[in-house]
Amino acid sequence: MLRPGDEPGAIALKLSEEQRLDWLRLIRSDNIGPRTFRDLVNRYGGARAALTALPGLARRGGAARPGRIYSLDEARTELKAIRARGIEFVALGETGYPARLAMIDDAPPLLAVRGKSSILGRPLVAIVGSRNASAAGSKFTQTLTSDLGAAGFGIVSGLARGIDAAAHRASISTGTVAVLAGGHERIYPPEHVALVDEIVVEGAAISEMPLAWEPRARDFPRRNRLISGLAAGVVIVEAARRSGSLITARMAGEQGREVFAVPGSPLDPRAEGTNGLIKQGAIMVTEASDVIAALEPILGRGLDLPAREPEPPSSADVEPGDDERARIVSLLSPTPAGLDDLVRLSQNTPAIVRTVLLELEIAGRLERHGGGLVSLV
Amino acid sequence: MLRPGDEPGAIALKLSEEQRLDWLRLIRSDNIGPRTFRDLVNRYGGARAALTALPGLARRGGAARPGRIYSLDEARTELKAIRARGIEFVALGETGYPARLAMIDDAPPLLAVRGKSSILGRPLVAIVGSRNASAAGSKFTQTLTSDLGAAGFGIVSGLARGIDAAAHRASISTGTVAVLAGGHERIYPPEHVALVDEIVVEGAAISEMPLAWEPRARDFPRRNRLISGLAAGVVIVEAARRSGSLITARMAGEQGREVFAVPGSPLDPRAEGTNGLIKQGAIMVTEASDVIAALEPILGRGLDLPAREPEPPSSADVEPGDDERARIVSLLSPTPAGLDDLVRLSQNTPAIVRTVLLELEIAGRLERHGGGLVSLV
Repeated sequence: MLRPGDEPGAIALKLSEEQRLDWLRLIRSDNIGPRTFRDLVNRYGGARAALTALPGLARRGGAARPGRIYSLDEARTELKAIRARGIEFVALGETGYPARLAMIDDAPPLLAVRGKSSILGRPLVAIVGSRNASAAGSKFTQTLTSDLGAAGFGIVSGLARGIDAAAHRASISTGTVAVLAGGHERIYPPEHVALVDEIVVEGAAISEMPLAWEPRARDFPRRNRLISGLAAGVVIVEAARRSGSLITARMAGEQGREVFAVPGSPLDPRAEGTNGLIKQGAIMVTEASDVIAALEPILGRGLDLPAREPEPPSSADVEPGDDERARIVSLLSPTPAGLDDLVRLSQNTPAIVRTVLLELEIAGRLERHGGGLVSLV
Repeated sequence: MLRPGDEPGAIALKLSEEQRLDWLRLIRSDNIGPRTFRDLVNRYGGARAALTALPGLARRGGAARPGRIYSLDEARTELKAIRARGIEFVALGETGYPARLAMIDDAPPLLAVRGKSSILGRPLVAIVGSRNASAAGSKFTQTLTSDLGAAGFGIVSGLARGIDAAAHRASISTGTVAVLAGGHERIYPPEHVALVDEIVVEGAAISEMPLAWEPRARDFPRRNRLISGLAAGVVIVEAARRSGSLITARMAGEQGREVFAVPGSPLDPRAEGTNGLIKQGAIMVTEASDVIAALEPILGRGLDLPAREPEPPSSADVEPGDDERARIVSLLSPTPAGLDDLVRLSQNTPAIVRTVLLELEIAGRLERHGGGLVSLV
């Protein structure tokens, strides 16, 4: 039996109350995602300075009208409401922020954690799968989950009907983490409100969204990156050819997580996705030891912390002139392009190109894709 | 779609009627298996000379009583009976002997082929599996077989109930080969007599055993080496943890054949064997294209013919003295030992050691194992 020790924690940082409010304002403002948040804080040295810079950046990026900036009052109200519900607000870099999640390049700056946050410091494995699970799939999930729980793993899943719910239920007592697509007050599906109450006794429910955020379709793939990001490996139990679980598997692969899949009959449509993953190199799982054997060396190795960002450059080096900006914008189109190409074709420094992209993004005109690609909206 | 050409044929040899009778007598004599047959023919330059040498070899090997030598009359009667039934008797090395099968080190010297022997010259793939197949397993076998048949493959199987029968039935019209564990007049299971009649219209049934040989338990694994030996690859559809199909898979691996397995639910005992094979590196099959894609390059490469045996050495070089023989025998025990070790420890030449082993084998005192290991019975 594996007896994993605690995962190493992230760099200990502790935000002041003011900083926490600034972080919350910045991440809740229009056109600011986790990557832009990080770029801005790195570029301006802090959330407060970034907030001050936002209107200028949006203007230079060509925003039709300036994006909404979350007000200090709104941030205070949200923080108060969160705390009133006993939910902890953990910032990227603080003790208590899940170490593995901190390593993904779009880690949420703030995570609302309800329940026992200590579970986030344990080795975690994600178990996800189809909503319309077969009886056999649910039964297998139960056995696999219990065995992995008994081996010391916390179980991460997405609170969906079917496989997800079976995984949570079978790890209520050993510890499980439900990652929400919406806010803590908009549990989806609604019939799982009671399940979350059970989960948070020994485990946790986490969300990066505002308390009352009603999850929309596109919030689920976004959420899936957190499921795989938290875990050392992701097990897919039953998945049809096109299914959300396969998105989680792809994200897990991109994040360097181990991908596991449970096989099934070629005649079972619920196994098409998982069999396909195995053909593509996912590790086949028929019992918990398959997962444990593959993850043991990874957990033993500890975490590779990401390279630190360089010191913020002086503004003269990164402030583009109007000609430079126009040239870079002219190179962009709805077809995704890479940063390297933009640097080469515009004959500018990477720092200048990055600033222009930041401006465009804040102006709501830029979309970021995987692999560092960007396109105009 | 794959349109495989004919497989290259083996070296064209044609036995005279007398030689064929000698071959039949030698392979049907006591203690002579396919490997010993080959050793004897190589050692003495032909089956006739080997038959003459047998009593002396058995005596020197310490046989309690001499093994039975199949008489010329018996051989004539068998050959006549075979021909009366329209069955062809193909010898190793003759045109019409399956080229891939000729490459395994225990290829049968004579093969009784009923039906269209031309199918043995086509690219073949074996499909085998559990006798108590599930409905889904049978259905999948049917689809896979039809698709591989349509792609130009002949389908080899073992005529058992369940998956084997489903594979034969789905390739009656495109061509299928039933490999029998007993003789042509002892079809097993008996209820498949009519199936064989259908098989031989466009395909063939083959056996290395005498016409009236009733198959015993140990004849089935022996037969399985022919199933894998004939084929470029072997697909296992449904197999429990310990099953005959896994023996075929192991033999296929040892013979350098591609091993394929069909996945199933971890809760389905019929999938334990196949899932295990995939974990060990078998190629996962959920559709015919998985098999075709893996076999296409192999078929395109043609066959690597085995290295030729050296010229038979002069008898002075290979005839052991009594001291040498005693020394080599003293090194043997019921624990399997390798030829290299026997040569080193006895300080004899490999040719001398081989002769002593041949004597012991013909005396019924030696057992040969995989990997060139031998032990005393």
